[in-house]
Amino acid sequence: MNSRKLGRGVAVVGAGMSRFGAFPGMSSRDLFVEAFKEMRTSVDKGFDPKDIGAFYLGNFSGDLFEGQAHLAPILANWVGLSPIPAVRLEGACASSGVAFREGLMAVASGMYDMVLVGGVEKMTDLPISAVTDSLATAADVTYEVSAGFTFPGFYASMATAYMHAYGATPETFMRVGIKNHENGALNAKAQFGQRIPDVMESKKAAAIKKGRPVPTWENELAFLSDDRANPMIAWPMRLFDCSPVSDGGVALLLVSEELARQFTDNPIFVAGSGAASDGALHSRSTLSSIPSAKIASQQAYEMAGVSPQDIKLAEVHDCFTIAEIIATEDLGFFEAGKGWVAAEEGLTARNGLKPINVSGGLKSKGHPVGASGAGQIVEVWKQLRGQAGDRQLPNSPDLGLTHNVGGTGQTCVVNIFERR
Amino acid sequence: MNSRKLGRGVAVVGAGMSRFGAFPGMSSRDLFVEAFKEMRTSVDKGFDPKDIGAFYLGNFSGDLFEGQAHLAPILANWVGLSPIPAVRLEGACASSGVAFREGLMAVASGMYDMVLVGGVEKMTDLPISAVTDSLATAADVTYEVSAGFTFPGFYASMATAYMHAYGATPETFMRVGIKNHENGALNAKAQFGQRIPDVMESKKAAAIKKGRPVPTWENELAFLSDDRANPMIAWPMRLFDCSPVSDGGVALLLVSEELARQFTDNPIFVAGSGAASDGALHSRSTLSSIPSAKIASQQAYEMAGVSPQDIKLAEVHDCFTIAEIIATEDLGFFEAGKGWVAAEEGLTARNGLKPINVSGGLKSKGHPVGASGAGQIVEVWKQLRGQAGDRQLPNSPDLGLTHNVGGTGQTCVVNIFERR
Repeated sequence: MNSRKLGRGVAVVGAGMSRFGAFPGMSSRDLFVEAFKEMRTSVDKGFDPKDIGAFYLGNFSGDLFEGQAHLAPILANWVGLSPIPAVRLEGACASSGVAFREGLMAVASGMYDMVLVGGVEKMTDLPISAVTDSLATAADVTYEVSAGFTFPGFYASMATAYMHAYGATPETFMRVGIKNHENGALNAKAQFGQRIPDVMESKKAAAIKKGRPVPTWENELAFLSDDRANPMIAWPMRLFDCSPVSDGGVALLLVSEELARQFTDNPIFVAGSGAASDGALHSRSTLSSIPSAKIASQQAYEMAGVSPQDIKLAEVHDCFTIAEIIATEDLGFFEAGKGWVAAEEGLTARNGLKPINVSGGLKSKGHPVGASGAGQIVEVWKQLRGQAGDRQLPNSPDLGLTHNVGGTGQTCVVNIFERR
Repeated sequence: MNSRKLGRGVAVVGAGMSRFGAFPGMSSRDLFVEAFKEMRTSVDKGFDPKDIGAFYLGNFSGDLFEGQAHLAPILANWVGLSPIPAVRLEGACASSGVAFREGLMAVASGMYDMVLVGGVEKMTDLPISAVTDSLATAADVTYEVSAGFTFPGFYASMATAYMHAYGATPETFMRVGIKNHENGALNAKAQFGQRIPDVMESKKAAAIKKGRPVPTWENELAFLSDDRANPMIAWPMRLFDCSPVSDGGVALLLVSEELARQFTDNPIFVAGSGAASDGALHSRSTLSSIPSAKIASQQAYEMAGVSPQDIKLAEVHDCFTIAEIIATEDLGFFEAGKGWVAAEEGLTARNGLKPINVSGGLKSKGHPVGASGAGQIVEVWKQLRGQAGDRQLPNSPDLGLTHNVGGTGQTCVVNIFERR
C-alpha cells in the first residue's frame, strides 16, 4: 500500500457540467465552456479565475474522435486561463477520474493552491462503427481487439461469467437499467432521462401514429426482453444494458483545505482517494470482479478512515448494467455474488439502503467517456451539499463515493468525499 | 506566479533509455521494456520494483500511431508493476516532460515515496504523410491545420519572423544542425549519429559506387545549401533543419529527497520545475519567441533560486533548428535576437560557454515525441553524475536544465537538476 495521508487536505468548492447528449455542431471547446460557466456560478462566494494555478483535463481521445490532440492548452485558452499549466490525462473511460486525482496531488504537493479539473469528450461526430473502433483502442489491441473483441463483448463475457458463478439472470441486469432510468428521469442534464415505462408509452404512441400494430408489454421486464424493442448487442447485454455514446464536459474547482471556506460555507472535502491498474481482461484470473476496483477502493477507505458501510451514496461506473453489479461488490457494499440480489431487492434504488447512481449513472445520464468520472463527482458534490434538486437524497448524506473504471479495469480510480 | 517550493524534495536515482531510431517490429511495449531494463541497472545500490508507487507515462498518441490508447496500464503490466496506478499524460511533444512534472508532484505531495516516469512513442509504423497528419493534431486543427499548416510550416514561419526581426540567415540554422550532429556522433543511442562531414563523405562514396558524378562541396554549409543534398521542406527549413520521425522509450526513477541516498551516492535532485500553456501559434502576438517557455523557465529559476548564468548545460527542444535558437533566448541564456549570434560564434557547442544539446538533441538523437522530454532528462542526469562517457562535459557540471515544448509552445515544461 503506497498511498497515505496527503501533505495537506483538498476541497472541491465549485462544480459544473454541460448537458450530456448528442449535440451536432458543438465541439469539445463548446462543451467545456458550458461546464466552466456553470462551475463559475457554483462557487458561492465567487473566485478570481486568475487564481487558478493549473488545469488537469481528462480526455480519452480527441485524437480519434475529433482529430484534435493536445486539447488541454486549447481549452485553457478558450476559457481565458493561458498561460497556466494545462495537461491532459488519459486513462480511457477513467480519464477524468485520473485527472481529478492528479489535481488532488497537485494541490496536496504544495505546488498550487487552486486547480481546475475538467473532463470532456465529443463522440458523436463519428459514425457509430468508428466510435466502437475508437473505444476499442482502450483495450489491448494486440491480444484482444485483434481477436475480435469490442467493449460490449468484454462486458458480455463478464456478465456470463458472473451469471455462471452466482446465478444471476439477464433480468437482473435489466433491473439495473430500469433503476437508472428512474433516477435519470430526475436529472435535466441526462441524455436519456426517460423512465422505462415512459419509453414504453412513447413506443406505443409511435406505433399508433404510424398505424402499426400496438405492442402490449405486461411490464418493463417484458419490454426489455422483447428483441425488437431492446435488441441484443452481445448476449446477455441488450441495448438498454449499454451506456450511450455521448458528448459532454465537466469542470471542478479544487482548493487547499485551509482556503476552502474563503469560497463557500459548504465545501466538500476529499476524504480518500485510491487508484490502481491492471493488465487487460484476457490476462486476468477472474471475469466476475475487477481487481483494480477492489484495490483502489481499499486505498480510499483506508485514507478516509471509513468503511463501505459508512458511504451514503455512490456513483459507480455502469458503462454496462453488469458493471454496476460488479462494482457494488468490488466496493464492499455487498458480498461477492450478492450484488445481483441487492439489485433485485431494490437496495441500490434511491430509497434503498445504498443508493447507487442517483444521477442516472452512465446508463441514463450519458457516457462522454473522458468526462464521465468528473461527472460522477459533480453528482456527489451536489448531493452532499443538499443541492441536487428533485433528486436530492433525504437525511443529509455526509459521505459519498465515486468509482470510475477505464477499459475493463486496466484503470480504476475511487474517491471519497465528505461534508464536515 | 503559482509555483513555490515543494512540500518535500525529489531526486532522480535511476534513468534508462532505448536506442532512438526506426525499429520495424518493435512496439511501444518493446521500446519501454528496453528503457526500463537499463533504468533498473542504473540504480547504483539497486531497488525493489515493488516499492514503485505509481507510473506516469508520457505518450503523445499511441491512438493514432499504433491504434493503441490506454497504454500506461499495459506498459506497467508489461514490466511487472500491476496493480500500481498507471496514467498517461499528453502534452504533444512535451508529453514526457509533463509526465515527469506529475511524478515530481506525486512524490512531493506525500502520496508516493517512489514513482516511475516513462515516455514512449512508436512513430515509424505509419507512412510519413500519416505521421505528419497525426502530428498536426497537436496544433489547433480548427484554426491552423484547416488552413493547411503542418509543423514544418509553423516553425518555418517562426524562422522567417526571426530572420526578419534579428537578421539571422538560413546559414545560421544550418550551424545548429552541424553542431547537434557533432554532438550526436558521440551518442551511441542517437538515430542519426553522423557528423555532417561524414554524411558528406558517405554521399560521395555512394556516388562513386553508383558511377554518378561525385559532388564537390567545399564545406558543410555548401553541402547543406545544396537543394539535392538537403532538400527544402518549408523555406527556410531544409531536411537537416528538421528532427526525424523516431521510435523510442525512456524510464526514470524518482524518490523523495530523504530516501535518495538509500539508492545511490550520486542522486540528482530536482532543483526547480516550471510549466506553462498558451493558445496556438495563430493567436499569439509574437512568432520569434515562445512565451510559455519564458514563463516556465522563470518559474523553474525562481524555485531553484538560480539564474540562467548558473546553468552548466541544457537540453532544449530542437524539433527544428530555429527552435533551439529561440529556446536559448527564451531561457535567458542570451538576449532576444542574440541567440543566432551565439550559435554562429560557437557559444552553444560542447566546448562553448553554454553547451546546448550535448546529447545530439532531437535533431540528431531522434524525436520519438512522447519520449523526448524524458530523454533530455536522461542526458542531464548522466552529465551531472559524470557518466556521459565519450560526451562527458569537463569540469563536473553541477546544474543542468531541460526544456521540452509541445506543439509550437501550447505546452512548455522546464526542469532544473542539481548535483549536491
